[in-house]
Amino acid sequence: MDNVVSEFISDELHEECGVFGIYDLAGGEVASSIYYGLFALQHRGQESCGIAVSDTNGPKGVVKSCKGMGLVNEVFNPDNLSNLHGNIGVGHVRYSTAGASSVENTQPLVLNYVKGTLALAHNGNLTNAPELKNELSYTGAIFQTTIDSEVIAYHIARERLNTPNVESAVKNAMMKIKGAYSLIVMSPRKLIGARDPFGFRPLVIGKRDNAYVLASETCALDAVSAEFVRDVQPGEIVTIGADGIESDTSLCIQKPARCIFEYIYFARPDSYLDGVSVYNSRIMAGKILAQMHPCEADIVVGVPDSGNVAAMGFSLESGIPYGMGFIKNSYVGRTFIKPKQSVRESSVKIKLNVLKEVVNGKRVVMIDDSIVRGTTSERIVRMLKTAGAKEVHVRISSPPFLNPCYFGTDVPSCDQLIAHNNTVEEICKMLGADSLGYLDGERLSELIAGDSGYCDACFSGRYPVDPPQDDIRGDYDK
Amino acid sequence: MDNVVSEFISDELHEECGVFGIYDLAGGEVASSIYYGLFALQHRGQESCGIAVSDTNGPKGVVKSCKGMGLVNEVFNPDNLSNLHGNIGVGHVRYSTAGASSVENTQPLVLNYVKGTLALAHNGNLTNAPELKNELSYTGAIFQTTIDSEVIAYHIARERLNTPNVESAVKNAMMKIKGAYSLIVMSPRKLIGARDPFGFRPLVIGKRDNAYVLASETCALDAVSAEFVRDVQPGEIVTIGADGIESDTSLCIQKPARCIFEYIYFARPDSYLDGVSVYNSRIMAGKILAQMHPCEADIVVGVPDSGNVAAMGFSLESGIPYGMGFIKNSYVGRTFIKPKQSVRESSVKIKLNVLKEVVNGKRVVMIDDSIVRGTTSERIVRMLKTAGAKEVHVRISSPPFLNPCYFGTDVPSCDQLIAHNNTVEEICKMLGADSLGYLDGERLSELIAGDSGYCDACFSGRYPVDPPQDDIRGDYDK
Amino acid sequence: MDNVVSEFISDELHEECGVFGIYDLAGGEVASSIYYGLFALQHRGQESCGIAVSDTNGPKGVVKSCKGMGLVNEVFNPDNLSNLHGNIGVGHVRYSTAGASSVENTQPLVLNYVKGTLALAHNGNLTNAPELKNELSYTGAIFQTTIDSEVIAYHIARERLNTPNVESAVKNAMMKIKGAYSLIVMSPRKLIGARDPFGFRPLVIGKRDNAYVLASETCALDAVSAEFVRDVQPGEIVTIGADGIESDTSLCIQKPARCIFEYIYFARPDSYLDGVSVYNSRIMAGKILAQMHPCEADIVVGVPDSGNVAAMGFSLESGIPYGMGFIKNSYVGRTFIKPKQSVRESSVKIKLNVLKEVVNGKRVVMIDDSIVRGTTSERIVRMLKTAGAKEVHVRISSPPFLNPCYFGTDVPSCDQLIAHNNTVEEICKMLGADSLGYLDGERLSELIAGDSGYCDACFSGRYPVDPPQDDIRGDYDK
Amino acid sequence: MDNVVSEFISDELHEECGVFGIYDLAGGEVASSIYYGLFALQHRGQESCGIAVSDTNGPKGVVKSCKGMGLVNEVFNPDNLSNLHGNIGVGHVRYSTAGASSVENTQPLVLNYVKGTLALAHNGNLTNAPELKNELSYTGAIFQTTIDSEVIAYHIARERLNTPNVESAVKNAMMKIKGAYSLIVMSPRKLIGARDPFGFRPLVIGKRDNAYVLASETCALDAVSAEFVRDVQPGEIVTIGADGIESDTSLCIQKPARCIFEYIYFARPDSYLDGVSVYNSRIMAGKILAQMHPCEADIVVGVPDSGNVAAMGFSLESGIPYGMGFIKNSYVGRTFIKPKQSVRESSVKIKLNVLKEVVNGKRVVMIDDSIVRGTTSERIVRMLKTAGAKEVHVRISSPPFLNPCYFGTDVPSCDQLIAHNNTVEEICKMLGADSLGYLDGERLSELIAGDSGYCDACFSGRYPVDPPQDDIRGDYDK
Repeated sequence: MDNVVSEFISDELHEECGVFGIYDLAGGEVASSIYYGLFALQHRGQESCGIAVSDTNGPKGVVKSCKGMGLVNEVFNPDNLSNLHGNIGVGHVRYSTAGASSVENTQPLVLNYVKGTLALAHNGNLTNAPELKNELSYTGAIFQTTIDSEVIAYHIARERLNTPNVESAVKNAMMKIKGAYSLIVMSPRKLIGARDPFGFRPLVIGKRDNAYVLASETCALDAVSAEFVRDVQPGEIVTIGADGIESDTSLCIQKPARCIFEYIYFARPDSYLDGVSVYNSRIMAGKILAQMHPCEADIVVGVPDSGNVAAMGFSLESGIPYGMGFIKNSYVGRTFIKPKQSVRESSVKIKLNVLKEVVNGKRVVMIDDSIVRGTTSERIVRMLKTAGAKEVHVRISSPPFLNPCYFGTDVPSCDQLIAHNNTVEEICKMLGADSLGYLDGERLSELIAGDSGYCDACFSGRYPVDPPQDDIRGDYDK
Repeated sequence: MDNVVSEFISDELHEECGVFGIYDLAGGEVASSIYYGLFALQHRGQESCGIAVSDTNGPKGVVKSCKGMGLVNEVFNPDNLSNLHGNIGVGHVRYSTAGASSVENTQPLVLNYVKGTLALAHNGNLTNAPELKNELSYTGAIFQTTIDSEVIAYHIARERLNTPNVESAVKNAMMKIKGAYSLIVMSPRKLIGARDPFGFRPLVIGKRDNAYVLASETCALDAVSAEFVRDVQPGEIVTIGADGIESDTSLCIQKPARCIFEYIYFARPDSYLDGVSVYNSRIMAGKILAQMHPCEADIVVGVPDSGNVAAMGFSLESGIPYGMGFIKNSYVGRTFIKPKQSVRESSVKIKLNVLKEVVNGKRVVMIDDSIVRGTTSERIVRMLKTAGAKEVHVRISSPPFLNPCYFGTDVPSCDQLIAHNNTVEEICKMLGADSLGYLDGERLSELIAGDSGYCDACFSGRYPVDPPQDDIRGDYDK
Repeated sequence: MDNVVSEFISDELHEECGVFGIYDLAGGEVASSIYYGLFALQHRGQESCGIAVSDTNGPKGVVKSCKGMGLVNEVFNPDNLSNLHGNIGVGHVRYSTAGASSVENTQPLVLNYVKGTLALAHNGNLTNAPELKNELSYTGAIFQTTIDSEVIAYHIARERLNTPNVESAVKNAMMKIKGAYSLIVMSPRKLIGARDPFGFRPLVIGKRDNAYVLASETCALDAVSAEFVRDVQPGEIVTIGADGIESDTSLCIQKPARCIFEYIYFARPDSYLDGVSVYNSRIMAGKILAQMHPCEADIVVGVPDSGNVAAMGFSLESGIPYGMGFIKNSYVGRTFIKPKQSVRESSVKIKLNVLKEVVNGKRVVMIDDSIVRGTTSERIVRMLKTAGAKEVHVRISSPPFLNPCYFGTDVPSCDQLIAHNNTVEEICKMLGADSLGYLDGERLSELIAGDSGYCDACFSGRYPVDPPQDDIRGDYDK
Repeated sequence: MDNVVSEFISDELHEECGVFGIYDLAGGEVASSIYYGLFALQHRGQESCGIAVSDTNGPKGVVKSCKGMGLVNEVFNPDNLSNLHGNIGVGHVRYSTAGASSVENTQPLVLNYVKGTLALAHNGNLTNAPELKNELSYTGAIFQTTIDSEVIAYHIARERLNTPNVESAVKNAMMKIKGAYSLIVMSPRKLIGARDPFGFRPLVIGKRDNAYVLASETCALDAVSAEFVRDVQPGEIVTIGADGIESDTSLCIQKPARCIFEYIYFARPDSYLDGVSVYNSRIMAGKILAQMHPCEADIVVGVPDSGNVAAMGFSLESGIPYGMGFIKNSYVGRTFIKPKQSVRESSVKIKLNVLKEVVNGKRVVMIDDSIVRGTTSERIVRMLKTAGAKEVHVRISSPPFLNPCYFGTDVPSCDQLIAHNNTVEEICKMLGADSLGYLDGERLSELIAGDSGYCDACFSGRYPVDPPQDDIRGDYDK
């Protein structure tokens, strides 16, 4: 869940962003609430973060912002927080692949345009960003970042010229951009939340006294003691102004395509997304695994932290006792750099150690959320065997990754996916496991309690939106 | 386990140190192994850390060291690690109370004396340090730190004048110092491990190819792929030299007094201390709680991370299902500073969130390792109730704290201990809990599988060594 | 010349930028030369700096850049410099007023547009930036910074749509922008230097083997061992491509308006600007002062560092011996923060001390380059008297400041200018001086050896270009 | 004067320390005055600095200190200064050779001993430190630093056992230590200043209202608006207590040996040392040079900053006009690291540029304070010639360096001294100069207005105290 260990990273997936917005109609300061909210969303992005605030009662369009590379508690401190005066604001946490990791690309994007200032925070990936950038450049646009948010901002700015208000401009812009976006836009007097019609990424509404909150996940509402109001619907635009909240659902479609992997891995288990408890989804994933891939074993363990809930589900269904198989070192931090002279020690050992007492002499069911390249899984199986496990039965609470994701996560290209090039049997052998079972793709809908519309393209290859034609990476490197 | 949140801190206990030493008889570099070992011991001290190394084949007594305030991954980087050339070395992680938290007090202590150089790493607290400092000062000694290690170093240096080798000097020094110490001493050609006769703090021996390792806990041996050889016995001095390992047990006594709280809280569950699995100790603590303080309930949850294993033990014994009641935010980091403008948000929420799905509508048994002042426990009980728990039955896997510790932990003075001033019934009410049960002090020996000698002074008031006469805090503040 | 001391700052003027560009036609690396060049231009801006480089033989339009707040030796280090591979590049040092001091506003501005990448470094201030931003915003432009360079970049990008090459686009853009600009533009295959038709700010051309260099001042050529070729003429565009250097002078005008204060204060004395030695200009200023405002005195001293050369000129003309009246503490650094508890010590004393031996019992002529608010001058006069000076005759090597500057310096608004509100006699009294003489505005042309066209608007109020209609400060604050 | 440029460093000499102490009898805070005082002494040491303060009315012996690597304005900030409460304190700036440059060696040394706390700041070098350390170690002493101050502290601590007060202990200690030391000792209730009997290093007394000040140079008194009272005499001990200042001169000797190079180079020209103006000393050095080594020339220039005053003296005596031959870049800072890819640019160019206008076509007399290895001088001569100087006549305001210094400066060993291995004629040729003249050693006494006792061992080889028998560098490397 974090890019802790260089070796380790290669086998972990990353969400690309989390967003948080708040508008206190009664005029209270909001920077510290955004700070707390971003802490709760830190798992969605550990590379950079930022906060932009404004005062709806102050001079129009004065935005104060602070952004930087690093974790929330590295970028913010009492001094810079206390400068962020305002009763409306938006925050962002970000992960990105290395190339575009730079301070220019931090969010929220803060800008001036014809109607004053805007601040944007965006979670997701547009699939037609290159085409849109190309089109825009032929009208004289310049791009100072390599993030999609800049493309969205341009469209809002241009639409705003011919629309009566910013929410209409957002709507018109949404009719041009394609792909995944959960978006929070702060204008001088309004806070707008919008979600793409497929609803790839989550976005929820909360309320605390006179303040409305928008956030990627409900866990961020809990962090600021806000009550959950409802999810922003896929395709919906909500506009929070001095008079309260308004909704435009005219872009909503029949059947959205929520990212199923949010439930399996990305989101925090204490969050509820589109009415579904992430915790329950994972319990269910574990139960299905136990049904489809039962095995004789003495203990079920989860690979921390993400495998633990599914392991409990497996245990509940199979009757095999749940155990704590691993100790995770929580002090490793965001980055781990191997010493130059190091040869022997494996970096996976820095992060995890097996509880010998739990697995020694046992037949172990090991639950993990996914296998990307397979390197980490192989090491963990080996650690379990070294600790005395008689058998290791690997169960994965998702189907095999076969296709890249273009909607806001970093599932790598096919040739790096172990499941793309190998059968389950071959993978099992490569891991050194005694058996291997993946979640059956046919049963994914059970994770979200009925097929209310989800995206499983990374497993099935069925993309709800056409993939981008070219690589969407920018061509300069700051 | 970490001093994360300022409010939170007040209700957590801290170990005061972890030590790690290694001597590669074949001449290999050891700095990176010490670095990995300190990572695994980080839970024993997050305030400062350091490494000192030497080359037993190089010019006699050249020690290279690097120390600093902060976590292992904050203080060390590839550059400073690559400067630490040598095949023998010692490392240290440290926690201290605020007053003496300074770079002068970081360890290992590196010094020159009559026979060249010494480096010392020390876990524990001497009870006669003030008297010894006083005595030493009357012979013209000067003290540049406020750590006991300096007192130990002086005694070794003075004894060395009349002893044939450094291990004899260590032994003679041990006859003068009183209290708790697990000590690693690096001389130009030897690595020495020593443990006070009561064995308050742990110290283990490991081996990897031609290298001997000394460490506070076995989890550090795992981290460097060393095999566990045995524990250093209470009172034993082991000397690792070019010819291998030698032992002097002449200071060993009949019945040691190992800190029982290492098993309950301080040590990592994957460690084995003096032949006992910490994990098993905690499972047993949970089982005893279930026997002594049973209750009708629907789910058992542990306060993460330290309450989880005992919660499993309670579940195993009681048959009440184990559940994951909380999500812990692992990104909060070592320090958390509340924003100045913050009024509403409780900092405990930054670190923990309740899994509503698990506790809503349930009668909950909540297991924690201890209650110090009670403030954190009260908040967590309230969070559970807010999340819908019908009842909250608090079970504590240790007896009530009634007395301060003088042997290397920071159990505060009596007047701050909730149990010192209140009955169990009163505490239960203060916590807002529906029932409260502590581990029975009489059954503590079961945690370590028979009374092989342990210290429970913080619970019982039976101090194996006389407490210090004065406060041992130094009187200058760097 | 540097914003050293908070109190002190208020009475110093600041240049707003320095630029440096280089294109090595033979393909050699240029980052280190830019680094050395920026060091030599550091006096033109100490707030932030940046370097952007590209490889004309590599994939088209890949730009690597590094920017940051602080001095050149604070922002750059061997690691980040060694990542800046390329044989063409541009660098920038910047000063700005506090409000817009942020990392977003650092230069060079690096961007993508229809033809790939551009990097811009700009010295000066546009006077029609607000109007242009307004116009652009009505075509949907968004602004992520508050620097004029972004406006220039937009115009180049838009003009590029209808022009055959980037230099034509620069030219067309120049026909729209008004005010002061010395500009270096790096396109994938060309380095372009341009200077506004009035030539407010300097720009010179140098050459070293196969490399062409553009820089604000010749002292930067010296720093990289390049030979001075010639000045870029006011209004000229020079284009350095694979085939060498080309010039377009079609925008040149009859009579430019070079900033006379570059000679008096901003530029380094070892630089030659538009054929005139800055050193000679200052010597001449001192001589004119001696002619116009002679006095009986024993010694002439300059306020370091900027008053020293004019003091020599005064001495040469008057025959009164030149002396070193002050010691300047060169260790104070860029920023000086007064301790909270400080009451007594004046911060001016941190930076300067009087050489008693030189002034005690003497009638002193004290030469400074200008008086802005008068606070610093008053303190320095007092220091001289305290050190025993019998008389202090202040001579200022520029006319009185009466009007703000809109062309790239920070001469403050009228109400803060001591000369705007007081007669020379009154100022003399306020300073505690025995006499006061300013340089006569009529004789300014002698500083540059004949009236080849200069701007003295800050003294005379004769603006060569209409001042901006509104305040040009941006309205958001990052 | 600062270790700016790696190449450059090799040819500059360094003072090894500056000290500052203050005791406000009226109880006022002193930390900010120490801060200002250290700023004024920064030229005496740029590697590390520190402040220790105490409250003479507070609990006895509570010392607060803050030390660190770097310049005064890098180590101190309003936060850490505001924690340094107290009305008595001592500060230190330090330079050292690379090996022992570490945070352990920063001063003031703060320690506990039999009578409470002591803080020591020391300028100079003991010549018998190795023997004393050896002796001490045979009584069981341990050494945690490699600085002489620790040896002095041990002796004071030991003597204190048998003396009625700390000043007597200092005196007894002084009878054992040999070499150069200007020392400030802070005990809980007294501030003591002591100077070795030869008075190698300066130490002055100042007064401001109710506060007494001790400092290395008078320029530090000016910085805190204190009036100069008198110099501490060589061999004198002054004790400032609640009742004022007392003096013990019983260790004073007939003829001291003040370091003559303080006047020539180390001290600031605005300081007065032992009754002599440093400025006047340098003017005199220039005059003597003009008398002894006259030449036909058009202009006299000084190598900044240290050569400027002597250049004025030369001009005064010879009648050849004084000119500003060089521009020094004051933004280079303390450290300059050459970029890895740099090949061409000479680092001396970063720091200095020639004013062509001044030297072109002229016969130039170039005054510098000394030549150590000759590398820098050679480059500067070359720069002058490249700038068009017809002739360059080098005049050095000190005699040739022939011997190392053991009394607190870093004159290197003989084999690195150009004058040790070459005749003046040879050196002249190596420098590429047209003539070369050194100050005549016979006339050194004129610099300090009569032979009141000075040390010129680095020139003459006449050491007032026997040089140390062994190298005094410590043998461990932190």
